[in-house]
Parts: sequence; C-alpha cells; structure tokens
Amino acid sequence: MAEALVTRGDHVTVLDNLSSGRLEHIEPLLTHDKFRFIQGDLLDQKALDAAMDSVEMVYHLAANPDVKFTAGDATDKDLKQNTLATYAVLETMRQQGVKKLAFSSTSAVYGVCETLPISEQQAPHPISLYGASKLACEGLIGSFQHLFDMQCWVFRFANIVGKKVRSRGRTVIADFAHKLLDDPSTLPILGNGKQAKSYLLSSECVEAMLFAIEHAKQPINTFNLGCSDWITVDRIAELMVEAMNLENVKFEYTGTEGGWAGDVPRFLLDVSAINQLGWQAKHNSEQAIRFAIKNTLQEINQTTCKP
Amino acid sequence: MAEALVTRGDHVTVLDNLSSGRLEHIEPLLTHDKFRFIQGDLLDQKALDAAMDSVEMVYHLAANPDVKFTAGDATDKDLKQNTLATYAVLETMRQQGVKKLAFSSTSAVYGVCETLPISEQQAPHPISLYGASKLACEGLIGSFQHLFDMQCWVFRFANIVGKKVRSRGRTVIADFAHKLLDDPSTLPILGNGKQAKSYLLSSECVEAMLFAIEHAKQPINTFNLGCSDWITVDRIAELMVEAMNLENVKFEYTGTEGGWAGDVPRFLLDVSAINQLGWQAKHNSEQAIRFAIKNTLQEINQTTCKP
Repeated sequence: MAEALVTRGDHVTVLDNLSSGRLEHIEPLLTHDKFRFIQGDLLDQKALDAAMDSVEMVYHLAANPDVKFTAGDATDKDLKQNTLATYAVLETMRQQGVKKLAFSSTSAVYGVCETLPISEQQAPHPISLYGASKLACEGLIGSFQHLFDMQCWVFRFANIVGKKVRSRGRTVIADFAHKLLDDPSTLPILGNGKQAKSYLLSSECVEAMLFAIEHAKQPINTFNLGCSDWITVDRIAELMVEAMNLENVKFEYTGTEGGWAGDVPRFLLDVSAINQLGWQAKHNSEQAIRFAIKNTLQEINQTTCKP
Repeated sequence: MAEALVTRGDHVTVLDNLSSGRLEHIEPLLTHDKFRFIQGDLLDQKALDAAMDSVEMVYHLAANPDVKFTAGDATDKDLKQNTLATYAVLETMRQQGVKKLAFSSTSAVYGVCETLPISEQQAPHPISLYGASKLACEGLIGSFQHLFDMQCWVFRFANIVGKKVRSRGRTVIADFAHKLLDDPSTLPILGNGKQAKSYLLSSECVEAMLFAIEHAKQPINTFNLGCSDWITVDRIAELMVEAMNLENVKFEYTGTEGGWAGDVPRFLLDVSAINQLGWQAKHNSEQAIRFAIKNTLQEINQTTCKP
C-alpha cells in the first residue's frame, strides 16, 4: 500500500511496530523524499500523534494477523492489538481532525454462515477472537464516523497472500512448507482437507482498496474483498507437493471439520458489490495460492541457504 | 433479576460498583441467607474473582447505561465499562470454568435500519459508542462461547423502563420531568418529536430473560426483547403533561430527525423469535411509559419533598 501511494505521488508516513511486518518490505521507500517511517506501536500515544500529524487520510492496516488462537495464547491479544489499537487510531484522528479512514477488516467477522456466498448484508457472528476484535473495530469505526463526521472505507478481506509473505506465520502455506521440509513423506493436515476458502493476491487487494476509495463515496463504505471462487485445503496440499517436486506424499488428517478452534471451515465471499463498483480480481484462488507457494518456498530457501 | 432468582431459590451474588444502580434496590435481599453483595468494579480482578467463585451461571447486566454521548464525554467510556468489562467477565469465567452466561445487549447495536421491524438476522451497524461497545461484547461472547465451550444467551433490549428508574439518567422521561418542573409552560423536545421507539417494563424483561434461558438451548441464543409496538416522543410528552396535571404546555422542537448524535430516530424490534419460543410482553409501549412516568414522578417527589 505504501509503495502504491508513493508511486502515485502521495506523501506517506508508515507507523509500524514491525511485530509481523518487516523493514525490508519498505526498504526501497526509506530514502524517498515523500516517505517517512516511524517504528512504533499504535498503543503508544506519542508515536501515534507523530504519525498522524498533518495527514489527510489514514490507512489502518495494523493488527495481530493470526486468526488462529492456540492454547496458551493470551485471550486479549486481539482485543489489545486490534480493538484498542483501532480505538486509539480513531480517537487520535478525532483529536487531530483527520476525517478519512480505510480499514482492513476480515471475512472472519462473519463466522459460519449457512448461506454462501456471504454478502456484506449478512449478520456477522465471529467464532474467533480475531474476528470478534475486527467486528468491534467496525462498530467503533461506524460510531466515530457517525458522531464525528468522518468518511470510512471498511474492507472485509478474504485470505490475502502475496510476495511479502510471512514464511513462519500461522497460515496453511507456511504450515505445509515447513512440515514437508521436515518430513517429505507425510503431510499432516489440520481438519479433513475439505475446508475451502477464498484467496486474493496482496497486490490486487491494494488495487481494490484504492479503487473503492476513489469510487465509493458514502459516509461509510463496506466491501468484501476477494476473488469469486475458493480452493480446498486438499488442493493447496497438492499444489505444494507439486511445487516442491515431491512424490507419493501421504496426507494424514486430524479429521475435524475446521482445522482448529475458531476456524471457519468453508467460506466464499459475495464480491458483487466491489465488482459492480467496477473492480474485479484478475487471479482466482488457485492462481493466488500458486504465487504464494512459490514465494514462500523462495523465502524459506533464502533464509536457510548455505554457502 | 436478583430478586427473581432469590425468590425461585437460587443462591445469588451481586457484584455492582453502584455507579448507576442503587443499594436500596436490593435492600430487602441484603439479609437473605442466599444472597451476597459485593461492591466492586468489573475491571477490578479481585472483586470479579470473588464474585465468580463457585458460581454456575453469570447474568452480566453491568454497563455504562447511557446511550447518549455528550460533547466533553470521554470517547472510551463504553469501551472500558462495556467492552473491556465484558472481556474481563468472559476471561474470568474461562479461568474459573463457569460455562453459562446471560448478557444484556441492546437494540442500539442495529443502528439505523431501512427495514422495520428489525429481526435478529439484520446486520448491525451501530451509530453510537454505546451500541458499538455492545456489539463488541456480542462478538467476544460468540468467540468465547465457541472456543471455550460455553452456553450463552444474548438479549437485545428495547428501552427498558420500570420501578427502579434513574430519575437523573439521560432518558426521555427524566429529561421531560425535570424540564417541566423547571418551567411548566414550555417543553423543549430534542429532535422533531416523531422519533418512535419500543419500551418494555423491567419486570417483564427479567421474566423474558428467565423464560428464554429455560427454553432456548442452543450454544448461543440471541433474542430481541421488547413489546411489539412503539411510541413516539410526542406521545410521551403528552403522557408526561397529563401525569403532571399541566395544561397548555408549549412543545418546542430542536427539529433534527434524531434527538442527539447517535440517536436512532425510529426503531421497532421484531420480537417474533421470543414470541414463538412462548413468551410475549403483557404491556405495550404506552403502558410501560405510563408506569415509568408515574414512578419517575414519585421518585422525584420523594427526593425533593420537604417536611
């Protein structure tokens, strides 16, 4: 997003605590005269004040990115890093008179829906702490928008994959890659392999957000962002095996419907709203996954390569 | 609620910081051997631990009760007293193995809906910080329920009025009563008087909650609670004038559609879900309002009476 904004001529300040992002992702921008980087946390008011000084619009994409809750995790991680951080962003905007906000919400707000594909009009029932925190953010955004006369764009992302992946994140791709590197004969798969989800390339996600901000002009504009198909976990496993040039890999399933507690087994987003606005994904879920697998493997090779 | 539970034979612990509730409301219970009162705040972990010790079910009805945000208010009042307090309740339940929760949500989660009456399936878009915080609570409850195997009842209240009213609360009844006591010739009315809302007596609200908890057995059970009609602000003004035996009172309107920022001008709850479960309000909105007006005026007379 920073790259796209600088490229089109905007002055950009990035505030990031680098808890999951990495400095090398914005390396080429660091010396650009329209770019400023502040390493800091959204819960640090001083950092936030500095970042928000004289800005026209906030792209609030910071969050704890892991949807998956693992036993032993603090239960207030998403509450702090998503809900409270978003409140801090909104309150600082209010104090400094910043009126425009774009926000990365998530399809995890919906939870398990009986009707697929899921339109923006479906009532959300999150089943993960991550989804719950993003829904809390949406509520805060809606009320700040209304009370303090802001204009907001809320994007409910499908699974976003791309070039700047986290090879150690709690994602199915990183999980498969590392498991197969450890043992190329067997792939333990969380769930029954039939879980199916929508994927979108990060580059397309950025493009869609900028398109929507330019073309949707309601006080509050909420869009599902994704492609119009999905891909199963089994198919992702096949693509990973193929990309790693492995053969006769045995798939072993934990057998549950969802991969983990809080996992929504099957979701397909209704993306007709953003399509009707005039934007459509060029790559489907399988193409996005193929791209992400290639990048994850490159990333792993680079960090584990020997002289 | 405490009275109803003790009456049916339950052991009851009340934890209340008395920020809006009053001790005299539970006075008759204080000496009952099945009743225990702890004065404390939900954000004080020690008080919460003490209250939650060996309990079977939590009725979480504590909140900042004012939907209305007034310039100068802190914007994180609802975030703290509703969202964070509810998180604290849930996390303490998880730690202590308490599995059942009833929660007072609000019709303010819906925001302004085009379709009336509003069913539980409508997507919520709160426009008040209060509504946003309650939606955040609902998300937290849903995810805790799913992740930690709880059973929850979520009640989206209409406006609840009754015997134990707050005569100084930010409610239309208290507002009208105090204005007319100050100046019986003129009643300044926030909005255009056409705002229309559903009211429910607190005694019926308690009855409905207990009925739903007994008869609805899903892992999570969400119900609108209200009667099936509504009443306009103009009609409430007429009833107040009548109850105070005034005549020729001039109504003066601020003229906006909503009474204040964050006010939902017209809402009517679809209560068919609770009706189909087998419960129905015995009093309509006008009857509930008449009752509340009578009690508010008595309350004011008692606190202002002279020897």
